[in-house]
Amino acid sequence: MKYFEPVLLKTTGVFMLIMLTACASTQTAPDPLPSWSNGPAKQRIVDFVHSVTDNGGSDFVPASRRIATFDNDGTLWSEKPSYFQLLFILDRVKLMAADHPEWKTTQPFQAVLENDMAAVKAAGMHGLIELAMATHAGMTTEEFEIIVKQWLATARHPTTGQPYNSMVYQPMLELLNYLRANDFKVFIVSGGGLEFMRPWTEEVYGIPPDQVVGTSIETRYELRDGRPVLVRLPELHFVDDNVTKPVAINRFIGQRPILAGGNSDGDFEMLKWTTSGEGKRLGLIVHHTDAEREWAYDRESSEGRLVRGLDKADENGWLLIDMANDWKVIFP
Amino acid sequence: MKYFEPVLLKTTGVFMLIMLTACASTQTAPDPLPSWSNGPAKQRIVDFVHSVTDNGGSDFVPASRRIATFDNDGTLWSEKPSYFQLLFILDRVKLMAADHPEWKTTQPFQAVLENDMAAVKAAGMHGLIELAMATHAGMTTEEFEIIVKQWLATARHPTTGQPYNSMVYQPMLELLNYLRANDFKVFIVSGGGLEFMRPWTEEVYGIPPDQVVGTSIETRYELRDGRPVLVRLPELHFVDDNVTKPVAINRFIGQRPILAGGNSDGDFEMLKWTTSGEGKRLGLIVHHTDAEREWAYDRESSEGRLVRGLDKADENGWLLIDMANDWKVIFP
Repeated sequence: MKYFEPVLLKTTGVFMLIMLTACASTQTAPDPLPSWSNGPAKQRIVDFVHSVTDNGGSDFVPASRRIATFDNDGTLWSEKPSYFQLLFILDRVKLMAADHPEWKTTQPFQAVLENDMAAVKAAGMHGLIELAMATHAGMTTEEFEIIVKQWLATARHPTTGQPYNSMVYQPMLELLNYLRANDFKVFIVSGGGLEFMRPWTEEVYGIPPDQVVGTSIETRYELRDGRPVLVRLPELHFVDDNVTKPVAINRFIGQRPILAGGNSDGDFEMLKWTTSGEGKRLGLIVHHTDAEREWAYDRESSEGRLVRGLDKADENGWLLIDMANDWKVIFP
Repeated sequence: MKYFEPVLLKTTGVFMLIMLTACASTQTAPDPLPSWSNGPAKQRIVDFVHSVTDNGGSDFVPASRRIATFDNDGTLWSEKPSYFQLLFILDRVKLMAADHPEWKTTQPFQAVLENDMAAVKAAGMHGLIELAMATHAGMTTEEFEIIVKQWLATARHPTTGQPYNSMVYQPMLELLNYLRANDFKVFIVSGGGLEFMRPWTEEVYGIPPDQVVGTSIETRYELRDGRPVLVRLPELHFVDDNVTKPVAINRFIGQRPILAGGNSDGDFEMLKWTTSGEGKRLGLIVHHTDAEREWAYDRESSEGRLVRGLDKADENGWLLIDMANDWKVIFP
């Protein structure tokens, strides 16, 4: 029941009495999380948000301290059959191959060009970094931004045929909006490349570039024809994963989050760091349980491997989100 | 001239016609920069803000792209007789000396304990880093935050006797507020320590922790009695100065600013990077010209040395702010 009371407006010395008729309303607030099944998972999220935003309550957190951090791959968008950034790398290698005839006979490039994914995986982390550096470095930051945007506009997911940026989770988009509507500042804290994510996170998630934290390579300031550019160098600067996620949160955000969401053991320490703080906290794990609408995987997966998170969720009070049952829809 | 027009309010199907009496007002907008002398410097700032916020104009910049970056030492607060963080280090060494009897006979600690500033300076960058690491590392991030806050609450500036956080520039506080009122997102990009600044920038400047970029040391995630902590290690992670300021802006903010302010040659590349972007840009240099109310220094100073900035300001179109003439007051 909403009603208007007589209001006294004082403007530049003139009093005006405005009588507004009482006006009954039967509206109820719209569901902020319509793609979430009504059940304990959704209820726990809503209860958490209510409790930290209830100004008179004992769990109240001022808006400036309402920091929420989310992993990206497997938490906000899909990560199968491979991390999307790896698929970007493979596409780039094929596109760049014309300028690198030596790649036809040099591993791990040869494996990529021959679509031999077993050989790509066999090249291990060293091979992956070599592929990443060949495709992510050697250009200016502005050039790389254009490359990512063009790829995203044209590339299609190998099994769904959809643009990659449409394979984001509708329930999580609603959660991000719900948190922002409650004055949370929402960050991505991902093992993915900082500058691979930033060109599109604002449009897709509503998360601006400065609220994206990720893995980064070195860049160097130099003048070209008197104009400054930042050149991307083939050298890792920081890998944002497991124990370094809290390090990155501290360095980039400077506050401990009160809510964190992830889906893999790479998020374990972020969740631990978040939920070990004083006061009410919430840790979320997106559990991939829906082989029909998305993918089902956890302990044995090479992407989004989840072992410690499953074993320790209860003990830590983390909310396991069961995609198959807790989400009415997966993609927008 | 403000006036109210008849307004139609439609609420839940009920139309209510509210007639508001036209109400003449002779108010003009209050001056957003009252501590700035009316002159070309102030006018140029106001014109810039008007032009990038004029939605119909050719120089319009959407709010999400209105990034402003400011140096801290000598730009937002004073830096004489030494950088305030160095004075913090000296205070800390004296406080910690009881637990380090060996410092009485070990340089550069001995020099600090004997107030021999010439010997401290003679120890050079290597000595400074040694002092910094001894006082900034070896504790958790939370412990360090408390140390900084306690120092700031009790320490007094050696010549003015004022708390350090009151030696901030009132005209710059007004500028920060003015920019925020025009939907700018305002960042600090300083050579000062990231975690030395963050405990107080929100209260003093209205700049939250995640909008502070600076020099950082390594930290390590570890469990103590099952509780995660971040331990500060005696190892530099990133020095945020001159050519690395644009690198840090790109890494932390992910967008090129449209306005940057500094006071020393350590800000040269940040200004160059900012004002070389497309569209309307503004670069500001606070020139310390007021020996009476603050300090007067530039080319010969060990703090805030300004040579290239003075020589190249005109060529780059940067606004030199003459503290003595452009600012009616210095401190709040």
